[in-house]
Amino acid sequence: MAARRRAAGRARIVPAVSSVEAVRRIVAAWRVRGERIAFVPTMGYLHDGHLSLVRRAARVADRVIVSVFVNPLQFGPREDFAAYPRDWSRDRRLLGEVATDLVFTPQSRLYVAPDHATQISVEGVARPLEGEERPGHFAGVATVVAKLLNSVIPDDLWLGQKDAQQVAVVRRMMSDLDWPVRLHVGPTVRERDGLAMSSRNVRLSPAERAQAPLLYRALKAGRDVMREGGNGRRTARPSIAAHARAAERAMARVLAGATLGKIDYAAAVDPHTFQPPIDVAPPRRVLLLVAVRFPSARLIDNVPVPCGPSR
Amino acid sequence: MAARRRAAGRARIVPAVSSVEAVRRIVAAWRVRGERIAFVPTMGYLHDGHLSLVRRAARVADRVIVSVFVNPLQFGPREDFAAYPRDWSRDRRLLGEVATDLVFTPQSRLYVAPDHATQISVEGVARPLEGEERPGHFAGVATVVAKLLNSVIPDDLWLGQKDAQQVAVVRRMMSDLDWPVRLHVGPTVRERDGLAMSSRNVRLSPAERAQAPLLYRALKAGRDVMREGGNGRRTARPSIAAHARAAERAMARVLAGATLGKIDYAAAVDPHTFQPPIDVAPPRRVLLLVAVRFPSARLIDNVPVPCGPSR
Repeated sequence: MAARRRAAGRARIVPAVSSVEAVRRIVAAWRVRGERIAFVPTMGYLHDGHLSLVRRAARVADRVIVSVFVNPLQFGPREDFAAYPRDWSRDRRLLGEVATDLVFTPQSRLYVAPDHATQISVEGVARPLEGEERPGHFAGVATVVAKLLNSVIPDDLWLGQKDAQQVAVVRRMMSDLDWPVRLHVGPTVRERDGLAMSSRNVRLSPAERAQAPLLYRALKAGRDVMREGGNGRRTARPSIAAHARAAERAMARVLAGATLGKIDYAAAVDPHTFQPPIDVAPPRRVLLLVAVRFPSARLIDNVPVPCGPSR
Repeated sequence: MAARRRAAGRARIVPAVSSVEAVRRIVAAWRVRGERIAFVPTMGYLHDGHLSLVRRAARVADRVIVSVFVNPLQFGPREDFAAYPRDWSRDRRLLGEVATDLVFTPQSRLYVAPDHATQISVEGVARPLEGEERPGHFAGVATVVAKLLNSVIPDDLWLGQKDAQQVAVVRRMMSDLDWPVRLHVGPTVRERDGLAMSSRNVRLSPAERAQAPLLYRALKAGRDVMREGGNGRRTARPSIAAHARAAERAMARVLAGATLGKIDYAAAVDPHTFQPPIDVAPPRRVLLLVAVRFPSARLIDNVPVPCGPSR
């Protein structure tokens, strides 16, 4: 296993390739040896959330490939593609400290042709929340994940729970199109004050950074409501739909403290449909999600919650 | 090679599987032996056009997989999905007479889930002609070809020139999404009177069948115009755009004889863009395409033509 082959954490220079042909050649050689290959797609500017995915991937696969590619297709025309933070030498050093076997760094203009004409769109789970706030975002994600899977041809794909709706969209695409790859989801890694790690956190002003932990605090408040029942009241037949609405209100109340930002949403959804949970077909878990747009960066976070003790 | 392993044309029962898991298991065993795998997707009701693809595929690959699947996603709500001809026992017998190693027969309701939510759409080449006549058709084709490629995971994909625009759409999708598969195109196989073989020909009434060869006759008339220059006139600087328009008029004149049908189009296009050829960036070949909607079946045909003797 990759993790065991290496001395603990000793930095080394990870091989990096930028062409599809080069990554395929290396993967083909590993395949001949019967090795299992895991893939962690990233947009770079790595943090402990990414690195924890690499470590987890290495536990079940023989080889771990990490891509560093700021995907132009998933940014809207008014979004922060140009301003998205980048630091390749730092990324490469960090990847050298974990169990990375190869970094794939496609070059934007070569990888996405100027006359690129193909798009993968997903209905349902891709529609609400991030889908409404960022039109075209998930089609850009699905399209580039398809390209990356076809370029790397891994056995395992690792994504982070932090981008829960992205996980749901990619899961749906992989299932609908029969991708021969196993999807794994790693848990969100947080700062000590609860802020979910994100490459965009670095852009927050000190005042915004001070308010940023309110996202996770809001999620915990929503989780408390879901666990206890709406507003703490116990009823003979707890309604998941009612608890979900109460949780949304509780989250919004906490987020109101983020006076520097605008609340994009505070939602409780069925994690399979991303629609509000309904009592006639109650999900076993509800996903709580929040998004706040600060002037310097837009933040998202989420927690999955089992549907109350009485269920 | 599959073609050589077999006694010439002796019928045998071809193995057939309907689940993705089964086809992958068989392909994996072939892969371990280092065999090269070709894939011929069909909608069944096979004719010599399909069988010629299987024979060609067997010449360059060790194994040939044929899928028989009437893809519901590529039919419009008013189209002939239910009436599309089907004859599985005949198909299986015919495949036993050529170099088929495995038939993949996905079951419609299992293969395309009731809540299927993913679609692959292609801009540009998928827009005009068939794209206009059959909205959603090419998205349905692209989506199911992606599923089939992910199910079978072949080295080679074989399509027929008869569906020239479908070939262009799939080529574009495979290139844009980096599919690790080589696309091959087999030439159109025709009846003695020139009618391109098609599963739908069987549905023509005798009177329609008598008019059906006009499609190929129109294409030959258009080809003559392209070869000779517009209307036979020679000019010092032949204009491809003008020749193409003259070829379209010549094809329409011939098709006017198909009095039982409606001409959907008679077009001369750049085969890379499916737009009218332009003189400032003349293509090396022009693709002539015709489509006629008879009451019993809609027919399409095409021929590629080099751009005139003076080029």
